[in-house]
Amino acid sequence: MSENKPIDFYFEFASPYGYFTSLAIGDLAAKYGRTVNWRPFALGAVFKITNSAPNMTIPMKGEYLYRDIERCAKLMGAEYKVPKVSPMNSMAAMRAFYWLSDTDASQAVPFAKAIYREHWGRGRDLGPVEAVAEVASELGIDGDALTAATQDPAIKERLKKETQTAIDRGAFGSPFIFVDEEAFWGNDRLDQVEHLLRTGGF
Amino acid sequence: MSENKPIDFYFEFASPYGYFTSLAIGDLAAKYGRTVNWRPFALGAVFKITNSAPNMTIPMKGEYLYRDIERCAKLMGAEYKVPKVSPMNSMAAMRAFYWLSDTDASQAVPFAKAIYREHWGRGRDLGPVEAVAEVASELGIDGDALTAATQDPAIKERLKKETQTAIDRGAFGSPFIFVDEEAFWGNDRLDQVEHLLRTGGF
Repeated sequence: MSENKPIDFYFEFASPYGYFTSLAIGDLAAKYGRTVNWRPFALGAVFKITNSAPNMTIPMKGEYLYRDIERCAKLMGAEYKVPKVSPMNSMAAMRAFYWLSDTDASQAVPFAKAIYREHWGRGRDLGPVEAVAEVASELGIDGDALTAATQDPAIKERLKKETQTAIDRGAFGSPFIFVDEEAFWGNDRLDQVEHLLRTGGF
Repeated sequence: MSENKPIDFYFEFASPYGYFTSLAIGDLAAKYGRTVNWRPFALGAVFKITNSAPNMTIPMKGEYLYRDIERCAKLMGAEYKVPKVSPMNSMAAMRAFYWLSDTDASQAVPFAKAIYREHWGRGRDLGPVEAVAEVASELGIDGDALTAATQDPAIKERLKKETQTAIDRGAFGSPFIFVDEEAFWGNDRLDQVEHLLRTGGF
């Protein structure tokens, strides 16, 4: 196990379980001397490969999930409000994230956390770029520059590339976590992540 | 919360996470003064509604799952061997279970546990009725009577009815657990099941 290699945390902003992991992964990694490499990716591209769809749109599963999310939030003590729009279109938020990564890296993770908090914690629809820019402004990020960046072909290409990398590594859901080369799917696998970090293997 | 109402445990023999739950649910229920109502159901009927398929047959997910199962087994200390055939055709085993429920009820749960142990613990294919009968024989169950029962129209109908009841109650995966009217999907929700049993609610 490489002591200092960051943990790769792949996530979709429209995913509630990605939200829950976003609240815990930093502390978990730090406990074992690791950092976290945050990587939003477009789950829609995965669904074409797995012939699947967002959980909330699947008959039976959809209705169940909202109750499960509510219970998970309660057990974690996490803020939660049913989003106005779900699944949210996360394209603008993802592109903004990678633009920040390149231009003002220290703001990227606080931005991702704020998007998750506003969407899953407070129910806000962050599909429209105006709403994303507003959340960013509260962190002191230039909303106009962000809005322009989401239409920048290089940023669009960057997101596609990151998504393809995630898929090539086997990520098919959110959250998807890599500790070195070991892959974990789901917030409910953080116990396995911790087992690996603590013991060095399975 | 009704103190004495049994916990309904819906499962598919072809499901590894159902196997893990089968190892733990009895003790968990007993800890809180409950019994367990074991209910195999045909997940294939659900997949038609949810437009899904057995996990192991889904691109990307399939490869991941075998590693996850291995890790789950290790963390639980459960016996595990990659099954020779997966997903297994569980029709004969499910029908045999309901036949036993009606004719020799005390044998039904030991039989279900034995099927799970042989399939997921030791890798045996229990699709063929001959193999199911062999496992049953080791428990002192009449293999010939079992084999005949799996072709009995009343037993076939019984399984269909149980499957429809599961679906009507919202079960779309395995394991699917009902504590009173609260629904839980997945072995990784046993912590939530325990929370409910302990505290009486969410």
